[in-house]
Parts: sequence; structure tokens; C-alpha cells
Amino acid sequence: VRIAVIGLGLIGGSIGLAARERLDAETTGWDLDPSALAAAGARGAIDMQSRSIAQAVDGADAAFVAAPVGALPELVAEVLRRASAACVVTDVGSTKRVIVAAQDDQRFVGGHPLAGAETSGIGHARADLFAGATWYLTPTPTTSGILYERLYRLLSSLGARPVAIDAADHDAILAVVSHLPHVLANVLIDQASTAPGADGERLPATGPSFRDATRVAGANSAIWTDIYLSNRDALIAAIDATVDRLGSVRSALARGDEAEITRWNNDAAATRRRLAAAELASGADLHELRVAVPNRPGVVAQIALELGRAGVNIADLALHPAPSMTEGVVALWLAGADTTTRAERLIVGLGFEVFRA
Amino acid sequence: VRIAVIGLGLIGGSIGLAARERLDAETTGWDLDPSALAAAGARGAIDMQSRSIAQAVDGADAAFVAAPVGALPELVAEVLRRASAACVVTDVGSTKRVIVAAQDDQRFVGGHPLAGAETSGIGHARADLFAGATWYLTPTPTTSGILYERLYRLLSSLGARPVAIDAADHDAILAVVSHLPHVLANVLIDQASTAPGADGERLPATGPSFRDATRVAGANSAIWTDIYLSNRDALIAAIDATVDRLGSVRSALARGDEAEITRWNNDAAATRRRLAAAELASGADLHELRVAVPNRPGVVAQIALELGRAGVNIADLALHPAPSMTEGVVALWLAGADTTTRAERLIVGLGFEVFRA
Repeated sequence: VRIAVIGLGLIGGSIGLAARERLDAETTGWDLDPSALAAAGARGAIDMQSRSIAQAVDGADAAFVAAPVGALPELVAEVLRRASAACVVTDVGSTKRVIVAAQDDQRFVGGHPLAGAETSGIGHARADLFAGATWYLTPTPTTSGILYERLYRLLSSLGARPVAIDAADHDAILAVVSHLPHVLANVLIDQASTAPGADGERLPATGPSFRDATRVAGANSAIWTDIYLSNRDALIAAIDATVDRLGSVRSALARGDEAEITRWNNDAAATRRRLAAAELASGADLHELRVAVPNRPGVVAQIALELGRAGVNIADLALHPAPSMTEGVVALWLAGADTTTRAERLIVGLGFEVFRA
Repeated sequence: VRIAVIGLGLIGGSIGLAARERLDAETTGWDLDPSALAAAGARGAIDMQSRSIAQAVDGADAAFVAAPVGALPELVAEVLRRASAACVVTDVGSTKRVIVAAQDDQRFVGGHPLAGAETSGIGHARADLFAGATWYLTPTPTTSGILYERLYRLLSSLGARPVAIDAADHDAILAVVSHLPHVLANVLIDQASTAPGADGERLPATGPSFRDATRVAGANSAIWTDIYLSNRDALIAAIDATVDRLGSVRSALARGDEAEITRWNNDAAATRRRLAAAELASGADLHELRVAVPNRPGVVAQIALELGRAGVNIADLALHPAPSMTEGVVALWLAGADTTTRAERLIVGLGFEVFRA
């Protein structure tokens, strides 16, 4: 398998390292910055340092565009112009509505791995960056099912857990679970710099809770200004919700309401445990479903999105076109008997026939 | 040296382990909960499981009260009643005004190590919990200089960096660098549970930034309800400042102000670097100052607080009483020539004579 990586920072570099190490893939790379390209070659993230996007994607089975959100529309369009009809093209941008709206090529699937944090640059790239990480994919009705399946399996091979999601849902969720934490980290850092006794030279000592809360403060502006602005409506809604919640806590504190503060804190503890359990949910108890589908673009995306919307995670997926190529079977593996029954009902609800394997 | 630990959770247990491992101290312990006491014995945190506070502090050179903030006034008073005239008594509570106001015994020094985070209980105790951690001390004019020095040296031996501070300053700083991050973590967790697609059963996938930001969410209510309420005025002020800052970010986002978002984010990056540098500042280039002082309570505290207020960290400290016991010399070690000159000026400003060693 041959993989092109356009943009060789932390994410692009890690894709290259993982693809070479886990898939024994041949990787080609291109970056606007010649020194990043050379560093990616030296780190072993790419086999070939390409002189152009056209050269990088020549003969590629999959192309990853790993550039700042603001640069994606132009780069993805160029990659699609240069890539073959059989090449799946994806990006790794942290917001998805803009790029998904800009593309209706059936070879394009928007993507976003939930990995990487306070570091950036090829120097921090590592082959295991995506191990166990959710990797969101935003297929649309125009997406090729065959190419979606190839990308899905490729990401699984890199160690990630691909999850299909609507671009709008993605952006609303990421506003809460990523962009808002970055905003709050920046706010906390700024506030600490004006704490009692602090001045330009001196800053207060901090403990582990502060260091954890501010680890992502001041993340690379070349990446994050784009993210904040491309998702500003969702981020503003998330900020408003935070201000509301802070208002409730403030009231309980002002009243000295011990019972309410305890309830609020216990609720947070319970929710945190549920979140952690959801992260750890493994695919040990796998069940297979087979779905007969017409072989046209959008069908796999439709099923993946329906399950994604219902919170059903697809542990594995395979597409078997019938020899006639007019129909086929989508095989899905799901974790747990209850989840499988729920998935079956949802897919039947879409009008497809489902068989238990 | 004999050390009593009253309350054997994460902090008390770690004090016991560190004192035995680093100081070869004999440690006695008491806990209201017999199973915590037994577990501390089994973990090797204490040499003796005492049946009462009186038995635990009998013959102790130092006593640590490591209990929830709400229980401290009563427990500290009981420890002071039972401890000898030569025993320094301290606590580890996360807020300091209440307990410091409740005690004017010259043997008492309020304390607070910036260590421990999302875990609690003797099961997570470890000997290196305080390695490199700031350990705030809140001496007052009634504090015995000799006992303060003993506690200071003891904490240094446990691997901590003791820093003197006013109780009110401590509480205002901790509101920002600890209590507020805990509040924001709780708010983030709650907000994630209502993100698009989330319901009682399902929660969104999260990435590393969210997990870091919420690591301390829902911290043990038995400890944290007390902390929030005992510092509620300072915490409310910190929450209000956060809401103000969020309002500014919101405005810049609503305007689509790219330059302002970039400036704000770059400022956070710069401040974060300064905070990290301050944490790493080591005591490699140490200079000694000797200060002639009258041998009366409060003098060491006065010097330590004056330097603490000015952001001058004392890397080490020793008190040498003259044989007459009416006067003595305080030896201070400071990191860096500039800091030492600044410290010298501050101490001369207090009216004491200073000698360079």
C-alpha cells in the first residue's frame, strides 16, 4: 500500500511513522517547508521526499492532508486534482464543516484524529500517536463506499478507532471537548499571571491540577487561530453554556449551599467515571452483522452515520461487492450483544436487509 | 526524629512514607477510620498505629494534621493540647485563613503542600509525592522561629520547597491555581455530558486535551466541599474574573478578530512558558546571607514572609541561637546573585543587620 502525506507536522509525521511501522506501507511526503520535509525523511516518517503534491500523490492508494484548517480547502482540492480515481483523500483538520462543504468529490472523506495535544512539529511525531484514539470521519451521501471502507480499515490498522459523524455534530462536540478546554486553559494561565503577588517577573507556584488544566494553553497559533475562528459559532455557544454553569456554581457558593456543592461535585465524579468507562469500552465481545446494500456511493456512509448518531461504535467494517458490482454486502462488527441488536434495528429502519453471521 | 501523622489519607500517608524513607524517622499515626490506620501500617507509612491522638503525639518532634479542612480546627487544637512544648504542629489544609485565625499557639504553623491531584486515600500514598513540590507555610508573628526552622528543614528533607506566605494571599492564589481549575473541570465534564448526541447512556469521545483538563473533576467531596466553601469569597472572585475573560474572548470570536485571537493565544503561550520556567528554577547557584536577629517568636516568620511577598524563594534556612538565647543568627540560602542582593535589601529594610557569608 502506498500512502501520501501532505503536511509533515506532528499528525502528518505520525501518520507516516505508523503507516511504515504497522502497515509496512510505502510513504511519500510533501510539505511547504523544505526543512519539515527533510526532517520527516530523517525521522523515517516518509520513504520519499516529493518535490510537489502531484509527485507525492502519484500512485497513492490514500492521501492524508495534514495542514492547518485554513489551508485545507486549497490543498485538498489540489490533492484531488492530482490523485488517481482509486485514491481516497482525507484531511485531519480539527473542524469539519468548512472543508466538507467545500468538497463533493466522491473520493474525499473528512477526518479528524483525537490525538496530539500540547506538542507540535515533526520532532514529536510517533508511530503510536493514534493507538486507541477516536478518529472521526465525516462521509457524505456522495462518498464512495469502497473508498470509505479502505480508509476505515487503514485507520484501524494505524491503531485508531474510526467513528462516522456528521460534520456539524463533530464541530459542536469538538467545541465542547477540545476548543473550549483550550480557551479555558488560556484563561486560567492569564488569570494566574495576575494572582496576588504575581507581576511581570514573578508568578505563583502551581500544583498538579493547574498544570494538567493548562497543559494545552497557548497551543500553536498557526494552527489554533484557524480552529477557533472556523468553529466560532459552536465555540461561542459552548462559552455561553460555561458562563451559565459558572453562574450556578457561584450562586451555590454565595449561599454557602453545602448540599448543592456536594451534589454538583458528586455528579461530576459520576459523569467522569462514565466518560472514562466509555473510553475504555473494548471490542472484546464482537458480533457480526451483514447488510445487503446496493453498490452505490453513500450507502456505507449512510449506515455508518446512522450508527454513529445513535452512539453505536463500529469496531470493524468490511465491504464485499458482488461480482456484478450492482450490489454487495457490508459486514459490520459490533461490541456487545445489546449494541448489536440496537444496530440491527437501526439498519433495518433504514430499509436494508440484515443477516446475523 | 519522631513524627506524628494525624489523618492517613494520600497526603498523611505520603508524609509517613517520605519521613521513614528519607529521614529514617520514627512515625506514629492516628486516624478516625481504623481501616485507614491499619492500611497505613501495612503500607509502611507508620511504625506505630496509635489508639489516640495523645498517644500518637507523645514524644513527637513534629505533628502533621492531614484531615479535611472542616475538621482541622478541632483536630489541631487537640494535637496542640497533647503535644509537648518542643513539638511543632502543622496542617496540610488547602485553605489557610480559617485554621490560622483559629490558632495563636507559638508551636503552630499552617501548611499546604501543592501535591496530589485526582487520587486520594492511603492506597495512592508514595514517598516521592512531595519531590520538588512547593509547600506553603503560613507563619504568624506568634510563631516560634526555632520551631518554624525545624519544620522548614523537615519539609526540605521530604523533598519539598517550603515557601512562606500570608494566609490571605495563599487563599487568593489557591483560588486561582487550584480551586478554580477544579470548578472548571467539573463544568467541562457536565458540559460534555450534554454535548450533541450525548444522553444518559452515551457520551462523546474525548481527546487528550479534554482528559487533561478534567483529570481533577469530581474530586473527593469529603475533602472538596469544605475547600470550596471555606474559600468561597476568593473563589467567587476568581469565577467572576474568568467570566470577564470569557466575555472578551467571546467578543473577539463574534467579531472574527483574527489578530486579537492570535495575540491572546500567543500571550497565553508566553505566560505558560514563564510559569514553567519559574517551576524549574533550581537552587544551583546558591548564596548565603546571615541575619542577626533577636531571639523572639515571629522574627523568622517576619523575614520569611517579607521575602515570600517579594517573590524571593528561600532555598534553605538555618537558625543559630547564641548561647545566651537572647539573640541569634538566621542563615539564608538564595538562588542567584540578583535574588540574593534583592533579599539583602529587603531584610535591611526590616531593620536587621545582614552579613554576606
